[in-house]
Amino acid sequence: MLIALFAGDGIGPEIVAQAKRVLDALAIPGISYEEGLVGGAAYKAVGHPLPPETLALAKRADAILFGAVGDPDCDALERHLRPEQAILGLRKELGLFSNLRPAKVFPELADASALKKEVASAIDLLIVRETNGDVYFGEKGFRTTADGLREGYDIMSYNEAEVRRIAHAGFLAARARRGKLCSVDKANVLETSQLWRDVVIEVSADYPDVQLSHMYVDNAAMQLVRNPGQFDVIVTGNLFGDILSDQASMCVGSIGMLASATMNEGRQGLYEPIHGSAPDIAGQGKANPLATVLSAAMMLRYSLGLSAEADRIEAAVARALANGARSADLGGTMSTVEMGDAVLSAL
Amino acid sequence: MLIALFAGDGIGPEIVAQAKRVLDALAIPGISYEEGLVGGAAYKAVGHPLPPETLALAKRADAILFGAVGDPDCDALERHLRPEQAILGLRKELGLFSNLRPAKVFPELADASALKKEVASAIDLLIVRETNGDVYFGEKGFRTTADGLREGYDIMSYNEAEVRRIAHAGFLAARARRGKLCSVDKANVLETSQLWRDVVIEVSADYPDVQLSHMYVDNAAMQLVRNPGQFDVIVTGNLFGDILSDQASMCVGSIGMLASATMNEGRQGLYEPIHGSAPDIAGQGKANPLATVLSAAMMLRYSLGLSAEADRIEAAVARALANGARSADLGGTMSTVEMGDAVLSAL
Ligand SMILES: CC(C)[C@H](C(=O)O)[C@@H](O)C(=O)O
Ligand SMILES: CC(C)[C@H](C(=O)O)[C@@H](O)C(=O)O
Repeated sequence: MLIALFAGDGIGPEIVAQAKRVLDALAIPGISYEEGLVGGAAYKAVGHPLPPETLALAKRADAILFGAVGDPDCDALERHLRPEQAILGLRKELGLFSNLRPAKVFPELADASALKKEVASAIDLLIVRETNGDVYFGEKGFRTTADGLREGYDIMSYNEAEVRRIAHAGFLAARARRGKLCSVDKANVLETSQLWRDVVIEVSADYPDVQLSHMYVDNAAMQLVRNPGQFDVIVTGNLFGDILSDQASMCVGSIGMLASATMNEGRQGLYEPIHGSAPDIAGQGKANPLATVLSAAMMLRYSLGLSAEADRIEAAVARALANGARSADLGGTMSTVEMGDAVLSAL
Repeated sequence: MLIALFAGDGIGPEIVAQAKRVLDALAIPGISYEEGLVGGAAYKAVGHPLPPETLALAKRADAILFGAVGDPDCDALERHLRPEQAILGLRKELGLFSNLRPAKVFPELADASALKKEVASAIDLLIVRETNGDVYFGEKGFRTTADGLREGYDIMSYNEAEVRRIAHAGFLAARARRGKLCSVDKANVLETSQLWRDVVIEVSADYPDVQLSHMYVDNAAMQLVRNPGQFDVIVTGNLFGDILSDQASMCVGSIGMLASATMNEGRQGLYEPIHGSAPDIAGQGKANPLATVLSAAMMLRYSLGLSAEADRIEAAVARALANGARSADLGGTMSTVEMGDAVLSAL
């Protein structure tokens, strides 16, 4: 079993290092690791955010443990050379279309949310976000209008096959949880959303046991603040999922706690914390590594079939929190390494 | 001075009626009112959500007081006949491009927010949303892919003139407030956003006194939960503004309290509550009319130059709340009419 380790930019190397320590402590037989360059770090080293060797390693690997990409030094580069192209390229080239972002409050952290404790404690939802299509991957560019004005454009689209496979992922996830699926779109304005809604309704015929509802994205953003406890599984497109999942993560308290998995049609997956590269605190040993540690647990469970080991990691994180482990984002003073230590000693 | 009254669908007629009572109580000399049909109500009466007479009245009027549009009965209609086309059509046909959505907590309602009181109390922000362009108004439709699949598409775009005029609106608003402007985009993925960011930076040269920052929309959705007090003015495109302004409104406590103005390049404006037509409670006399009453106040201030009268309405609303006026959305039991009564007696 080969794991590709892509640490990336900013705090990426620090947090992936702690997740690797936790994986090492499990001493899983037959597992091996290979590191690869991605993002701004790869651009600076070899001139491209997703070098061919990295892509080849990703394709060969059973799973990818990913840190974060994003580097302000690279903001002025042409789009295809920017760090973000690494994650977008991996999602596309490996067909990683189903991004699973669970949001649940750790009881120990219920006070950390900006939401009232009773509102935050009720959160137990999963966002299933499509990550191979939408306005992210349509034709885009600059052009000049008839009046000689500069114009930027991006084509948003979804076809029925793309919607169908993510809809199935959403219904299956809902069936494995509390049986409620909310599909989020903007069908009152967008034809892309209308097609999305039509196809989700078609697919629902296969899942009579799942209760389907539809919500406009503006209302969903509102409801995620007002009463996030109402949601079980949310299925949505790439752009709306980007926005809503970051919002949901903050409702939970700290974005430093949330893991994600992005799966293709097989068992291959990319596992990464929801948070970004946080250039402002990079290299200071302050970042919270728990989202990456929890991403490693998801990796063991979904791509390697090692549920017992995944459970052990998750239990160790919960115990570390119960023992008082708190990095700065959680209102504490522990360093990245000390947070890793706390998980290791709880293992 | 002619005011067009467009009540629309759902709770629209109930809430506009209360705003009209408040306006009548001010007995403003030289003001006249004309009603027009919009939305699903217009479709049902005359076959179109924005009939020519309504549009002509809108163009003739100094200002429009708008209730809400949206009617589930109309969901299956062709897009150009749906209720939403009334508001989209009015924004476009009258050049109403600058949508101002202030969000501020009434001290009496600080407990109503799902956010902790100390987080909610710090909110005092204004979202300046562009409403004439973006993916809302680009070419859109259904097509068949090369593989014979159904596909929905919508073209997102902004040209430099569109961005420039809303950027000026944002900078001017910031200058009149606390001097901070945050431009929200997704420039790490979208070329439309890259053009947006480039032009906002160009325009910033005219406003050295305003402190400009940029934020990705996913991060903005997160920050609006984590620490909404950090924002003064947010300027953003049509789609992101739709999502973020609804989210912000809920951070304030109830979407039933928030007013908005949408201005063109002159003084003409459309004034409407941020909330929708709420078909689930329509006709039950339960809706909170205060967002519409406050929209009427914005109308007096911005389109009619009647600041003193606007102040009077706003003070009356604050007094009504202080006296305990609470509709269901605010945790109380008062009816729509009783809420109107409470404002009138406070006037
Ligand atoms: C880095 C960026 C391109 C990416 C996205 O928008 O998908 C990130 O925000 C995410 O959510 O994974
Ligand atoms: C009704 C709908 C088309 C509209 C929009 O998306 O602009 C509404 O949500 C709003 O925010 O005014």
